[in-house]
Amino acid sequence: MKIGIIGGGQLGRMLALAGTPLGQQFAFLDPASDACAAALGEHLCAAYDDREQLRQLAEDADVVTFEFESVPAETVAFLEQHVPVFPNAESLRIARDRWFEKSMFRELGIPTPEFADIQCQADLNNAVQNIGLPAVLKTRTLGYDGKGQKLLRQPEDVIDAFAELGSVPCILEGFVPFTGEVSLVAVRSRDGDTRCYPLVHNTHEQGILRLSVASTEHPLQAQAENYAGRVLDKLNYVGVLAFEFFEVDGGLKANEIAPRVHNSGHWTIEGAECSQFENHLRAIAGLPLGSTAKVGESAMLNFIGEVPAVAKVTAIPDCHLHHYGKEFKPGRKVGHATLRCTDAAVLQSRIAEVQALID
Amino acid sequence: MKIGIIGGGQLGRMLALAGTPLGQQFAFLDPASDACAAALGEHLCAAYDDREQLRQLAEDADVVTFEFESVPAETVAFLEQHVPVFPNAESLRIARDRWFEKSMFRELGIPTPEFADIQCQADLNNAVQNIGLPAVLKTRTLGYDGKGQKLLRQPEDVIDAFAELGSVPCILEGFVPFTGEVSLVAVRSRDGDTRCYPLVHNTHEQGILRLSVASTEHPLQAQAENYAGRVLDKLNYVGVLAFEFFEVDGGLKANEIAPRVHNSGHWTIEGAECSQFENHLRAIAGLPLGSTAKVGESAMLNFIGEVPAVAKVTAIPDCHLHHYGKEFKPGRKVGHATLRCTDAAVLQSRIAEVQALID
Repeated sequence: MKIGIIGGGQLGRMLALAGTPLGQQFAFLDPASDACAAALGEHLCAAYDDREQLRQLAEDADVVTFEFESVPAETVAFLEQHVPVFPNAESLRIARDRWFEKSMFRELGIPTPEFADIQCQADLNNAVQNIGLPAVLKTRTLGYDGKGQKLLRQPEDVIDAFAELGSVPCILEGFVPFTGEVSLVAVRSRDGDTRCYPLVHNTHEQGILRLSVASTEHPLQAQAENYAGRVLDKLNYVGVLAFEFFEVDGGLKANEIAPRVHNSGHWTIEGAECSQFENHLRAIAGLPLGSTAKVGESAMLNFIGEVPAVAKVTAIPDCHLHHYGKEFKPGRKVGHATLRCTDAAVLQSRIAEVQALID
Repeated sequence: MKIGIIGGGQLGRMLALAGTPLGQQFAFLDPASDACAAALGEHLCAAYDDREQLRQLAEDADVVTFEFESVPAETVAFLEQHVPVFPNAESLRIARDRWFEKSMFRELGIPTPEFADIQCQADLNNAVQNIGLPAVLKTRTLGYDGKGQKLLRQPEDVIDAFAELGSVPCILEGFVPFTGEVSLVAVRSRDGDTRCYPLVHNTHEQGILRLSVASTEHPLQAQAENYAGRVLDKLNYVGVLAFEFFEVDGGLKANEIAPRVHNSGHWTIEGAECSQFENHLRAIAGLPLGSTAKVGESAMLNFIGEVPAVAKVTAIPDCHLHHYGKEFKPGRKVGHATLRCTDAAVLQSRIAEVQALID
């Protein structure tokens, strides 16, 4: 079976590494000549709206999926006419727009921070009256890794905020005094079977994920799975979906969903029976899902800007290096380490060993 | 770092899958246009003694290794002039010739079945007098998967045996009434650090490995590691070496070594902390070795001739499919399944589930 992937970055690369042992072949559409997944399959080096290459991909592939959610809607619509595409266009339409996304949460009875649609500065002024400060102004689309958002602490911050984010459609979200950030990686098969990995505690710095630690019997696991199930069924979703939550007053408030394999699920390569990458491929290929159970105690640390010396990373026991083969650049995700340990105390000491290579 | 591999079959494929996350790139020299590793790197499609392509490989690669032992000696010698090559030429010279191999075992004090060098039918007649029947006549080189050998049970079998194996240099081995076949996969780094995986019980049918089960605290583990250590140090070996033994009267008799990653080590992909493939690459790349400890209870079943329906293999819990992407042909190794279970009883039932798909 040949899998077409829109995007050829590290997520495509890790999908191909997971799918090759299933006998799958891969083709990547990515305009970057140095796309890091390209070594693992065919590379269609073209723009994401290149009709000729999209037609080629649709002809070559048995199923098409995405590495990122901001794919042009026309691209998805075109592909869907020619080849099975998972997740579906509606899932991408919702997930790439914070207003649609949060409106869906509200419709499904999933708690979220307060939010309002912002089309102009006047909308923002009004919304701040209702929601209060602090609040976060975010572009409705194209935000990632803390980009496209602005924390508004006091009235002065509000004045030029809409212009500062480019005068594009935004959403204002009430600031939530959260005690933690957790995410749930879930997968739904073509026939509606749904499985979820253990909740993961995430630590961000400067808007970028740094550390994910898989939890054990988290008290909010069932709640998170319930919310994710509502979204997956509503969207008739197929594949992996990541659901980010704030922990607030012992409960969960939905932050956002990502309609794809997700950085907070990278620990599953070694840390779970079947990784998020393999399960995504199983789902879209119509195969039975694999177990989402943990193997040992796991965590993931991102390498941002550069990967430490390979000899140093591989010298740490219980540590598994995932080098993306990308050019090193400040702020760029270029690799990660997965830790898989026999107990939580060892895990904590291993995390410190990896962090010592980063700092 | 770029790794050159002589051979582009499933071993090269699994090496590339293990090395890509270490940031390694791969080039394969293989005359087969459909070499199944080719999708994961550069493919130099040429004969193994093609000087121009060997020169190209030596220029491109930082280190060169082998997927099989019957590489022409001239190829190894040529490469060693231009690029670091592991394992070294002497290791290949010994391992690809049963006479050299068994003579080395004898020299190192490692028990073996009785054996004799056979250059003609008269040699064979004499050797049968000394060693007795039953005995096994094997070609000194190029034997694998039970090919190139003949069991001699009674005097009539001896008469034309040398001619039947092609009148090439052979070795006669006394038949050993073994109670089991076990193998030890060992790895030695550039600086001499040596680690061994748990002994594996192997079951062959018609000369081809069918089932490998990783042992737990095998009483002969220390003995096997001692023998392997003698060989590794003698050869100043770098990389993974597999050592096959017969279990006889509660002890070990050396059968053969393979100077490469080995089918009886495929279970380590999921079943060990660091797989034989990653450890081979770590060794030849000058990186620290990874842990050879087991993760759970593991076994490996080969798929010979064809891979069962992917949907059926992936439906078995604890089962990990490794499809080699090769054309299906009777008698050909085209894939395997690794089982990784929490206990030995579950493992036995899973083995039966996979076997039910094969039979």
